[in-house]
Order: sequence, then structure tokens, then C-alpha cells
Amino acid sequence: MPKYYDELDAVLRALADPTRRAVVERLAQSPAIVSELASPFGMALPSFLQHLRVLEDAGVVTSEKHGRVRTVSLRPGSLDVLHLWLAQQRTPAEHQADRLGIHLARTAPKDT
Amino acid sequence: MPKYYDELDAVLRALADPTRRAVVERLAQSPAIVSELASPFGMALPSFLQHLRVLEDAGVVTSEKHGRVRTVSLRPGSLDVLHLWLAQQRTPAEHQADRLGIHLARTAPKDT
Repeated sequence: MPKYYDELDAVLRALADPTRRAVVERLAQSPAIVSELASPFGMALPSFLQHLRVLEDAGVVTSEKHGRVRTVSLRPGSLDVLHLWLAQQRTPAEHQADRLGIHLARTAPKDT
Repeated sequence: MPKYYDELDAVLRALADPTRRAVVERLAQSPAIVSELASPFGMALPSFLQHLRVLEDAGVVTSEKHGRVRTVSLRPGSLDVLHLWLAQQRTPAEHQADRLGIHLARTAPKDT
């Protein structure tokens, strides 16, 4: 299986869980330290750390330790593989609608 | 949990499996009958039908029976919920890059 498919598989498995999606949503605002990230979930810390690990193994987040504090960030571009796959699954009818949309955007007055 | 989150959850769980993703990829080309869809997978038909059912329950595909033949299609717009969620997870730096891209597209000569 090519690397692209492995990456896509890991990202989709990581996002198929609501806790992990909520972490991604939080990190899209800004990086956060682990204790702050964990607090809304009312989950035992080891379980929460396991979710973070799945996200990190999938390349969705990265983390850095400074002293005793670990800061987690969304890895920019990590969801691109999923954007790409989704774009490829557009049906012929949807492609036609896309082309119409692009045409309308290009022919619209520039300052509206 | 709002309906949007239920829908997103079902779509992501459906897509977190490589067989089901391969079915989506095939159906993005054109609708197909079940036996044709199943043939590349070398899987027992009941297992394959279970995968189709997950996709249908998630609203990703629809199917119609004519006589003894069931035709499966990708449901147009069914992946929009995922597009939308992904768009919301862009970091501030990525939003800035998006705005630059839009600016460049709008100021580029129209016929290149």
C-alpha cells in the first residue's frame, strides 16, 4: 500500500473518535498544554493520553516538552491528505458544479 | 449532540475502513451493481454487504433494487459534512495562507 494510503488510513482512524475530534477542534484555535486539553473530558489521564498518542502517531498533532509541561499543537497540513482524498471522490456531476462555481467566481466583480 | 455531529461521526466511522473507502473511490466514477462492486475484494458476500450497510447507514451511498439487481450510488453531497468540519479545523496560520491564495487567484490574469 503506498505511503499516501497509510497516512490517510491513520488520519481517518484518528478522526473516527469524538474525543480525538474535540481535541483537534480545540487545537485549531491554539496550542495547549496537556492538563488544559484534558480538563473538559472528565476522563482518566492515562485514557486521555492514549487518545493523544493516536493523534500523534497519525501525525495530526505534535507535542513538545518544556520542563514538566508538555504542549500539544495541531501539525499544519496534517489533514491535507484527507482534503486530497475527498477532492478525488467528487462525482462527475459535482465536478461540473465545481467548474460552474469557479467560472462564476472568476467572472464576478472583484470588489463584492 | 447536534445532528451535524452525529452525521460527521457516522461518515468518519464509515470512511475509517480501507474496504469502504475503496467502494467510495469506485462509486465516485459511476454507480455499480453489488456483484460488480464486490468482485475486486475477494471477500465473502455477507461481509461485503455489511460494509455496504455501514456506508448506507452513514448516508454515504444509496442503493436501489430493480428486479434482482441492486445498484449502489454515491449520495451527492454526502461528504460535505466532512469538508465543512475540515475547513473549520484550519489553524490561524493556514487561514492566512488561504487568504493569500484567494488574493493571488483574484489578481491573476484570467486566461492563464
